Amino acid sequence: ANALFSSLGTTIFETMSRLAQEHGAVNLGQGFPEDLEPPAVLEAAARHVLQGPHQYPSMMGIPALRQAVAAANKRFYGLDVDWQTEVMVTSGATEALADCLFGLIEPGDEVVLIEPLYDSYLPIVKRAGGVPKLVRLQPPRWDLPREDLAAAFSDRTKLIMLNSPMNPCAKVFDEDELAFIADLLQRHDAYAVCDEVYEHLTFDGRRHVPLMTLPGMRERCVRIGSAGKTFSVTSWKVGYITAPPHLLGPIAKTHQFLTFTTPTGLQAAVAEGLGMEDAYFEGLARDMQARRDHLADGLRGIGFEVLDCAGTYFLTTDVRPLGWTGTDADFCLHLTTKAGVAAVPVSAFFAGEADRHFVRFCFAKNDAALDEALSRLSAHF
Amino acid sequence: ANALFSSLGTTIFETMSRLAQEHGAVNLGQGFPEDLEPPAVLEAAARHVLQGPHQYPSMMGIPALRQAVAAANKRFYGLDVDWQTEVMVTSGATEALADCLFGLIEPGDEVVLIEPLYDSYLPIVKRAGGVPKLVRLQPPRWDLPREDLAAAFSDRTKLIMLNSPMNPCAKVFDEDELAFIADLLQRHDAYAVCDEVYEHLTFDGRRHVPLMTLPGMRERCVRIGSAGKTFSVTSWKVGYITAPPHLLGPIAKTHQFLTFTTPTGLQAAVAEGLGMEDAYFEGLARDMQARRDHLADGLRGIGFEVLDCAGTYFLTTDVRPLGWTGTDADFCLHLTTKAGVAAVPVSAFFAGEADRHFVRFCFAKNDAALDEALSRLSAHF
Ligand SMILES: CSCCC(=O)C(=O)O
Ligand SMILES: CSCCC(=O)C(=O)O
Repeated sequence: ANALFSSLGTTIFETMSRLAQEHGAVNLGQGFPEDLEPPAVLEAAARHVLQGPHQYPSMMGIPALRQAVAAANKRFYGLDVDWQTEVMVTSGATEALADCLFGLIEPGDEVVLIEPLYDSYLPIVKRAGGVPKLVRLQPPRWDLPREDLAAAFSDRTKLIMLNSPMNPCAKVFDEDELAFIADLLQRHDAYAVCDEVYEHLTFDGRRHVPLMTLPGMRERCVRIGSAGKTFSVTSWKVGYITAPPHLLGPIAKTHQFLTFTTPTGLQAAVAEGLGMEDAYFEGLARDMQARRDHLADGLRGIGFEVLDCAGTYFLTTDVRPLGWTGTDADFCLHLTTKAGVAAVPVSAFFAGEADRHFVRFCFAKNDAALDEALSRLSAHF
Repeated sequence: ANALFSSLGTTIFETMSRLAQEHGAVNLGQGFPEDLEPPAVLEAAARHVLQGPHQYPSMMGIPALRQAVAAANKRFYGLDVDWQTEVMVTSGATEALADCLFGLIEPGDEVVLIEPLYDSYLPIVKRAGGVPKLVRLQPPRWDLPREDLAAAFSDRTKLIMLNSPMNPCAKVFDEDELAFIADLLQRHDAYAVCDEVYEHLTFDGRRHVPLMTLPGMRERCVRIGSAGKTFSVTSWKVGYITAPPHLLGPIAKTHQFLTFTTPTGLQAAVAEGLGMEDAYFEGLARDMQARRDHLADGLRGIGFEVLDCAGTYFLTTDVRPLGWTGTDADFCLHLTTKAGVAAVPVSAFFAGEADRHFVRFCFAKNDAALDEALSRLSAHF
């Protein structure tokens, strides 16, 4: 019965957000942005929601959005994608992940997972009947342990879950690492489910490279994107999948029974959003990088050790330099209830025992929130 | 591998809608309404989508909608429901069904299903590891075969799926039938997942009675409702679950990994909708009953035998009086491509061999569409 969801707790993000609310804490726990929604996209959504159509669109998503996703694949990564057979819209990236895992995993298939990992991966893999094979990145630089990774693959490997840019550790896999993974996929005839929701959030001139763009990977990769992260509207729950037809087929069959489809008006607005000029996407990354620097500088000044951050919404810190000797979970509890700032323990992103001194902060907040959090923290430590 | 979604075809509704579009057919296949959306709800949605909040609400749904669902339970059925522990919002009733089945079924559990059945039930039950026990209603009145139903229950029964008002056969279970089911649930310590998306669409003065309102059933039933059906906005994908805490707990744990949450602006609009006065809900049923009568009279005039219809969007017809000797599926193919009217074969709602002479028509369309369909049909037959 430990393959069942019912044995699990409530997700750490919801738990910390509830606690933050109870204690009036500045919420740097759950990953969602503040004051970044492009007004054009919000206006488009209001217009489309009012005008309709109000009835079921195609279960694959509206043509305008599927065409926009195909065009974005070309524009940002040079990928030629057929919108009719290779793109599907989902009710958020979380649903996209569930569609991929329930659709592709047959009971007994092995699935390679890289820790730290996003908290829905493991429960879904297990509920789908998959046998997880866990590999751990090595802190503090979150290096890929290539021998361990190679050893995790076998004849029974169906797929690897690859999250890049990676939550919580803000790693962006480089081309050399991706080539190593691509080689393993080819040798073991395996697939990759690529969670790329932070694709437009990379910093310091670094570019996100989809595994799908590597030689031989076009037919082995499923790419998941998120309007929530790309347009700073996490409540919209619009995601999209790009995959070759032989993989999208079983994924779509799962989708039709998990949600069937996604609100038309929001899809139409996201289609408009994906057509925005380069300045929008560049500005989003630039703005987020400034927020990262704001929070990182502040935390360093207070005594946190701040790890490298190449992308995403998140900074990982080592709290030992503050003199903290308890666990990361206790630290976050303490921080939220005593200092009035919510954060998330990184050990929550591991399946078993893990380091207990890393704490994740979300920097996708406005200056006022970051300043308030920093001033509360400096008053406390 | 027959427990996997990948072995299945595309849902009959999508298939027929695509075919209808290709052939310019009037679409009386897939169940969605036309020209019934209450403008107040559309305006509320546009307003809330524009104003935000734009970031993740609670995974349980926004308080306003959960409170409105609790109030609707009281208002329509006299049920006392605690909005905080007994109500959850989902991304449509399809997701609600998946949450319930993945959340409650443990591999090996038996699940009682009543045929004809909605097409997502069986694939999800199997993928969740459930062992389906099928019982068939008896046409043409779709009587409940009580002995068969009793025989389908055992010590291993976890739950029954109960859809009332029932798609496709438009049956509304009466209190005597519900009492029989309630007795079985108590004797076998089993639960009911009650798909009540058509709760406000009953005709001829008949009232929908939730199984949950029967003695002893408050703790054994999960009730699923749908904003799409209640406010005629099937593209919105907002559903809601009412269940006692011990059942909602595991269901919520599944929800957090299938979609996590549902668009805030649409939730807020549905909350306003559920607060509309009685005249709205009564008008919806009255209007739909008039559409039923419009289509039923027309089809009878053309030579179809029209079965009783106590609720839902759907009329079932027997096509043998027209002289049709082929299958219902061929009839629908023929009708769509040759007569320009799409319908759905009722045998698609059965797991194995079934009667092949019943065809379902959706009457939730405006007068112009119904008239056009009827005139095409009379020209053809
Ligand atoms: C679905 S809530 C989680 C948001 C998020 O991605 C995170 O905080 O890591
Ligand atoms: C999710 S598409 C199916 C719509 C419907 O409920 C039906 O046509 O029966």
